[in-house]
Amino acid sequence: MTQTNRRWFYAAKPAGALGVQHFELRTEAAPIPGPGQALLRLCLVSVDPAQRAWMMARTYRPQLMPGDFMPAFGIGEVVQTQSPDLKVGDLIEGDFGWQEWAVISPKQVMRRHSRAPHPPLERLIGALGITGLTAYFGLLEVGRVRPGETVVVSGAGGAVGSMAVQMARLAGCRVVGVAGGAPKCARLGAELGTHAAVDYRSPNFRNELKAACPDGVDVYFDNTAGSILETTLSLMNQRGRVVCCGAVAQYDQGAWGAGVAGVPGILISRRIRMEGFIVMDYEHQRRDAEAAITRWLDSGQLKVLVQVVEGLEHAPRALVELLGGANFGKMAVRLELT
Amino acid sequence: MTQTNRRWFYAAKPAGALGVQHFELRTEAAPIPGPGQALLRLCLVSVDPAQRAWMMARTYRPQLMPGDFMPAFGIGEVVQTQSPDLKVGDLIEGDFGWQEWAVISPKQVMRRHSRAPHPPLERLIGALGITGLTAYFGLLEVGRVRPGETVVVSGAGGAVGSMAVQMARLAGCRVVGVAGGAPKCARLGAELGTHAAVDYRSPNFRNELKAACPDGVDVYFDNTAGSILETTLSLMNQRGRVVCCGAVAQYDQGAWGAGVAGVPGILISRRIRMEGFIVMDYEHQRRDAEAAITRWLDSGQLKVLVQVVEGLEHAPRALVELLGGANFGKMAVRLELT
Repeated sequence: MTQTNRRWFYAAKPAGALGVQHFELRTEAAPIPGPGQALLRLCLVSVDPAQRAWMMARTYRPQLMPGDFMPAFGIGEVVQTQSPDLKVGDLIEGDFGWQEWAVISPKQVMRRHSRAPHPPLERLIGALGITGLTAYFGLLEVGRVRPGETVVVSGAGGAVGSMAVQMARLAGCRVVGVAGGAPKCARLGAELGTHAAVDYRSPNFRNELKAACPDGVDVYFDNTAGSILETTLSLMNQRGRVVCCGAVAQYDQGAWGAGVAGVPGILISRRIRMEGFIVMDYEHQRRDAEAAITRWLDSGQLKVLVQVVEGLEHAPRALVELLGGANFGKMAVRLELT
Repeated sequence: MTQTNRRWFYAAKPAGALGVQHFELRTEAAPIPGPGQALLRLCLVSVDPAQRAWMMARTYRPQLMPGDFMPAFGIGEVVQTQSPDLKVGDLIEGDFGWQEWAVISPKQVMRRHSRAPHPPLERLIGALGITGLTAYFGLLEVGRVRPGETVVVSGAGGAVGSMAVQMARLAGCRVVGVAGGAPKCARLGAELGTHAAVDYRSPNFRNELKAACPDGVDVYFDNTAGSILETTLSLMNQRGRVVCCGAVAQYDQGAWGAGVAGVPGILISRRIRMEGFIVMDYEHQRRDAEAAITRWLDSGQLKVLVQVVEGLEHAPRALVELLGGANFGKMAVRLELT
């Protein structure tokens, strides 16, 4: 086995847009598990807009500071163990960062699959992992969508968005996806079954969104914040709900934006609920959610879209491209042994 | 009985702050009830920040337009009737506007008290009417306050705010009132039992509010919006709730403000719920709420603060002064027969 471990560090705080120059790759000695620990070989690491948010401010985790090792969710395989709870061949999900090898203890395990047959990695990271669960709980628990309602999803071509539009459709809603550019909008309809897709870059965005929602908007699943949030809020029905999931439009601005016109005015006059959440709050409901998602996957009703980048060395570039809107579906980096 | 009816009309849209010149008093013939109707002599009419909001935009009711008769909640006595459901001597609450006489039908009745002993008018308009119910449902149903939590109330010296601080205290919370000026803040502690009171006009407002909330803010009952909302939001705990009740700081700006920094960023990272409501949505729970409020009143735990202005001719001035923060407690105009 390898003696070295390539690891990505967050090197410098971006003033504006994030670039590959804000990261530094270091090669360190491979870690060695101590008593109660195991050595994990990372197979797939995640590339998420949230990673950019972590650099910006304290979120649900402390702010990421220059010099910090780059955190990331991922999936790895146990190759050495000194823990009875972690067996060689187990597939482990958790926050193990952008690196090749990790020494872990059982309490870092978010989910464990025995060596026995397990779902494909793409399915684990794209639908059954944080991505799919975020869409699921956001729609059903925070948004409380009901059949027949109109649901708008921004960042609809993104990891969570591409799951949210499909799940909203499966919940019997009219689904309108918002994404950047005609090609993405076309894919939303063709591949994910949205009832309408609207390009937020259009100069007539508001009118086009309004036309796509003839009965108004009941639930808005917001992955972007900014002007898309402001526009959609103005089209919402009484007792509407805004699921605050992400703010990708603001991350590269380096600070939370100036705010959204109509907050709280429209919230009051139309009795709207706006609610932030993170998937970890619904841990106690995870098994039920996984079962539901698995049924959709097995029946072919839910598609997993994972865009895989080969090689850990490309992780920062993948994140920069993601923030520029290059992805369709979940983005992840596959690691090969060095 | 009178042959004339003095009625206030909304005459012109204010560019900035509302003034008495935006109203016009007209004297019309007194209305005559037809079949199924009754004639009401108004006793007390309400002066509410919401009236300014109605001029600004469509809210839960159509926007008020110059030339419109001025709507207002109030209490009146039935003096003539052609309806079996409305008896002479009944005390009726509803939206009957700023006028002396109203012809009403049973469906306009929000609440009816028989001629028999009824609670004093001040109690009806200040604690048991919309004012008290708004505070009650906002805190308990929207804010879902729990004993031991820290609750911040802005506009704490206002009609709804003065009820909300007392009810939050009665619910076992630590209560921090926010109001304008040292005299009001002193009254909040002395008369309403807030644990702390903070003057939003202080140059150190944020630090003072932070010091008053050593365990952070769990629930913010927002009557003002604007910079008080922005500041309080920044001090909120994870899973906090913002009860969006009013936006009095924005009404005289003539448009909803530019928004609140941290929305949706802070909502996401701290899983905060922000929710607008209006009291009419809780009609089905009104009896329970009235019973609870009555128990508090009867036991002397809840004080009713009503500032009465004598004479319908002063209604516009009362509203202008209210928007300038002149009131402590509920403001209402008492009518005398002309």
